[in-house]
Amino acid sequence: MSTSSQSYPMSGGEDLHSYIHNSSYQKAAIDSLQEKRRLYILEKIDLLSLKTGLSTFTIADFGCSVGPNTFHAFLVCFNDQPNNDFNTLFRTQPPSSEREYFSVGVPGSFYGRVLPRNSIHVGHTSYTIHWLSKVPEHVCEKKSPAWNKKYIQCNNLIEEAAKAYKIQFTKDMSTFLEARAAEIVPGGLMILQGQCLPDGVLMSETWEGIVIDTIGDCLMDMEKSELISEEKLESFSVPIYFPQFSELKGEIEQNGSFAIELMQTISHPFQDMHLTNDFTTSTFRAIFSSVIEKHLLSFLADLRFFCLQIFQIFI
Amino acid sequence: MSTSSQSYPMSGGEDLHSYIHNSSYQKAAIDSLQEKRRLYILEKIDLLSLKTGLSTFTIADFGCSVGPNTFHAFLVCFNDQPNNDFNTLFRTQPPSSEREYFSVGVPGSFYGRVLPRNSIHVGHTSYTIHWLSKVPEHVCEKKSPAWNKKYIQCNNLIEEAAKAYKIQFTKDMSTFLEARAAEIVPGGLMILQGQCLPDGVLMSETWEGIVIDTIGDCLMDMEKSELISEEKLESFSVPIYFPQFSELKGEIEQNGSFAIELMQTISHPFQDMHLTNDFTTSTFRAIFSSVIEKHLLSFLADLRFFCLQIFQIFI
Repeated sequence: MSTSSQSYPMSGGEDLHSYIHNSSYQKAAIDSLQEKRRLYILEKIDLLSLKTGLSTFTIADFGCSVGPNTFHAFLVCFNDQPNNDFNTLFRTQPPSSEREYFSVGVPGSFYGRVLPRNSIHVGHTSYTIHWLSKVPEHVCEKKSPAWNKKYIQCNNLIEEAAKAYKIQFTKDMSTFLEARAAEIVPGGLMILQGQCLPDGVLMSETWEGIVIDTIGDCLMDMEKSELISEEKLESFSVPIYFPQFSELKGEIEQNGSFAIELMQTISHPFQDMHLTNDFTTSTFRAIFSSVIEKHLLSFLADLRFFCLQIFQIFI
Repeated sequence: MSTSSQSYPMSGGEDLHSYIHNSSYQKAAIDSLQEKRRLYILEKIDLLSLKTGLSTFTIADFGCSVGPNTFHAFLVCFNDQPNNDFNTLFRTQPPSSEREYFSVGVPGSFYGRVLPRNSIHVGHTSYTIHWLSKVPEHVCEKKSPAWNKKYIQCNNLIEEAAKAYKIQFTKDMSTFLEARAAEIVPGGLMILQGQCLPDGVLMSETWEGIVIDTIGDCLMDMEKSELISEEKLESFSVPIYFPQFSELKGEIEQNGSFAIELMQTISHPFQDMHLTNDFTTSTFRAIFSSVIEKHLLSFLADLRFFCLQIFQIFI
């Protein structure tokens, strides 16, 4: 029952910089699929109900973070790393008298088993699997051919580093699917929602990739200004990998535990909107402050100042 | 699905005054029954296993607080109020690689349903049911015959107040048993461990009762010194009621959902030990600081000082 992995929780609490108040981009994508997801779940549960006669259904949200969408009329299992801010999650749920589902928190990395065999009817995960279980091996080792130099993400400029990221993604995806296959009942449903790249598009060509590269550039500037050491910068990369569409599909097929019933690209509701500097800064701060804090610690206090400065130059 | 109740969580976190570091008295009592409890659970699970063929068993700990005893080889549901410090509970659990059970947190008052019907095989609660769901009605109302005057607990000096406490206990116990009866499978086991009074003994005659009365005396002294207002003191009582042995037995029999298989008095392992002033102060601080803070707020900062002062005079 091993679920060991590095863990970088979204910013907890309910303050100005918390994930709960800075995740509207992710929420908009989740909301846009609400009706489709609801129908899929109901259809699957009808089938299972006919087959098994069960009257209580269990839904698990893997990588729930803080302030997820909620479901109705079930036992809902909210899973995230043990250092996720479950206190805020529980305190911000509707009171039990106003909801028609029971709710539990499940601490543990979803890159491993977190629930008993055949205990879940519907699994759900949203904006999560691009977080690898750890920074790929050798990417932060100066002597390795996979060393990512002063870059902080998989930007495809160093072929061996890109390979290491891909290998880690393949391993993690396989672990994720095997764990879920054990936890979800035969005939159950797994909904996997998130971001992958269109085939042939590189991360560095997307706006999110550009923002992360800009944070990387900022760190390089800070190193030049001697605010952080060269060594710190050279051993820092983020454990994030966005697979291309066919790459994700390939992993699911290769694993073989699940049959793909539907796989489609949707447009993000904010796609054609102008995202303000403040919005972008706050969103990425809520996502990255924990991973940056863990590696660079003292640097955190300067982060907001620097991010704002960057975006003013950048946008 | 109503679980509304007042909530006074034990002190969270892991600092000097936290419940996790100041609950050895409760832990000693729980530990002293470990082997007996283990055998009971295994026997019950063997029976259920033969009957149902199930291979995963679910155990729920109602009112787990922070840092409970853990069980092995099951799904364990840790239940407590939504404002319990689940973060600390999850962070201080053994890593998943070192344990053979899955673990979930269940936010919600156990004076109401917190889990689906027939979802639990073994229910467990320890040192919890003496916490009423709320301060009994009228006990804090100056115009009521049940007004508890400046006393802060049910010390039997005011007959109507004692009645109000008893009525609240009866209501709460009935709600507790009905909720558990729905959640626990037919043939399942409920283990209820805690403190009740020997028949004929009053709370004010026990050492715990004397400590609480002394905290009450201290509040009266503070009121005389004008550190807290008369009004604040007169509207404050703690929602705690220790039933007598036969009273508890009567409630379980009256409810009728459970058959009593074994009900016995055990000696507390610390019974013949000298408990130091510091130990007593720290234990009661971890239990009462939240309820006192909620009512008296600004008073909290002075609590430790006053408690120490009291115990120096008292013991």
